[in-house]
Amino acid sequence: MLDIGLLGSGGGMPMPNRYLSSILIRYNGRKILVDCGEGTQVSMRLLGWGFKTIDIICITHSHGDHIIGLPGLLATIGNSGRTESLNIIGPKGIEYVVDGLRRVVPYLPYDINIIENPKQLTNIIGDMDIETLELDHSTPCIGYSFYVNRKPEFKVEKAIKNKVPKEIWKKLQDGEIINYSGKEYKPDMVLGSKRKGIKLSYITDTRPVDKIPEFIYESDLFICEGTYGNENDLDKAIRNKHMTFSEAAKLAKNGYVKKLLLTHFSPSIEDPNIYKVNAKNIFLNTIIGKDRLVETLNFTE
Amino acid sequence: MLDIGLLGSGGGMPMPNRYLSSILIRYNGRKILVDCGEGTQVSMRLLGWGFKTIDIICITHSHGDHIIGLPGLLATIGNSGRTESLNIIGPKGIEYVVDGLRRVVPYLPYDINIIENPKQLTNIIGDMDIETLELDHSTPCIGYSFYVNRKPEFKVEKAIKNKVPKEIWKKLQDGEIINYSGKEYKPDMVLGSKRKGIKLSYITDTRPVDKIPEFIYESDLFICEGTYGNENDLDKAIRNKHMTFSEAAKLAKNGYVKKLLLTHFSPSIEDPNIYKVNAKNIFLNTIIGKDRLVETLNFTE
Repeated sequence: MLDIGLLGSGGGMPMPNRYLSSILIRYNGRKILVDCGEGTQVSMRLLGWGFKTIDIICITHSHGDHIIGLPGLLATIGNSGRTESLNIIGPKGIEYVVDGLRRVVPYLPYDINIIENPKQLTNIIGDMDIETLELDHSTPCIGYSFYVNRKPEFKVEKAIKNKVPKEIWKKLQDGEIINYSGKEYKPDMVLGSKRKGIKLSYITDTRPVDKIPEFIYESDLFICEGTYGNENDLDKAIRNKHMTFSEAAKLAKNGYVKKLLLTHFSPSIEDPNIYKVNAKNIFLNTIIGKDRLVETLNFTE
Repeated sequence: MLDIGLLGSGGGMPMPNRYLSSILIRYNGRKILVDCGEGTQVSMRLLGWGFKTIDIICITHSHGDHIIGLPGLLATIGNSGRTESLNIIGPKGIEYVVDGLRRVVPYLPYDINIIENPKQLTNIIGDMDIETLELDHSTPCIGYSFYVNRKPEFKVEKAIKNKVPKEIWKKLQDGEIINYSGKEYKPDMVLGSKRKGIKLSYITDTRPVDKIPEFIYESDLFICEGTYGNENDLDKAIRNKHMTFSEAAKLAKNGYVKKLLLTHFSPSIEDPNIYKVNAKNIFLNTIIGKDRLVETLNFTE
């Protein structure tokens, strides 16, 4: 089970009624934060999921509305009693920016590992994999997908049929190959067929990129920027390297995702719901983000 | 007339119900911001005094809760259409910190002048003077006083008595010495005696320092940190280089100020009003800060 809290749904500037886009992912008692604009820690406090167990902070790009809250959050995580090291993932150049921001919080009670532009990180929290995709914004920017692998089902009847000794069932179930009493046993001797995991993808800020549909393919939840709701703002979207609601919906449709959650609304949009139809006409299962909306994703097979 | 908006009243971390300590000063249509923690621009938006006319940003010190909001605010000021240069004043080392934070907003449509640790700046906005005082915190930190000079009253009867030609009254009133028809005229030939201006002082974060009472002497409003309300927290105040309410009140009393406004409350204090008595026992005219409280100071003589 994966819980996703949308900490904010705005882009550009933090507003009194709309914090900046970021999400907090809760899985197996640990947490991943994606983006950290000014005010993110205030929204986190309202959500109430805690600070100490954030193991990874993924940054899409170094524009202020996605990263200015980082030094304050790092200090707050320090005050929460964390001593374990913390990973910060971001696009090329992220280390230079983080080093600059850290001039206001030079001393922290834990180490920070910075990982620039990784393509794939496996088993980063338990059995979760993270992949990234280079996007098309006015500064280096990456999208993220999070995949929770699901173990195949343990089949007792298969284990018995294959005469697998009970003593090694657990290890085979965990994926190990075991030599026992002179014979080799493999996991597929006790396990059922591969099962679909949980996939979450997060794309902001960018123009539509050809590779996105493949990257987000069959996501259970696709969180995507929709900076502009009005179709007449397409020229602004092109100029500022953002997307309209309908462009995001086309990606959702072409990526065969289950659900689209729009976020990163321009401060010029008072109520994004009035443009919801522009997305739903293309991709029906679209929801409009609002601060501290929580989605829970479960295994489906 | 000087308007002061307390943008936030908290210290340490931005909280949902209490933003970080900073003040916005409005004078003659221009503005000075003192400190800029995370969320300051959100509180500014709620206050509604605008962004474009901020000419000076005074930073007390480079701890995150006093400066992290700076890069986002600089971007927002840029978006407001400002092209005039902007001054940032701060303690020794502020340029290094501002340069680091600006890595997320490298391009702004106006220039920034950084002034490190000035003792006194005169006529910085109209006839306002700014003075600073080095404080005693865990990092270089300065307090500020703002003094609006008041012109002496123009005395028609005095001008007539001194046979000052009408043509030069205005220039003499503005403080110029004028040679006219072969004779020298001085401002005191048309002006009354010196009048008291408006004084505002702002002291945070620090332990009490001997020089503070003289620095804040006869302030119309003295805004001072009171990180801890409970007298039992004196040891914490000493350890963390902060003050209790009663310590701030002693400074107010010894500085003969008119009014004390306490701010920068520890996140551990739910309601600072319950400790108000600890300050009022020493200095009666004490008020407890709350977000977006506005005070207006007028000439009194």
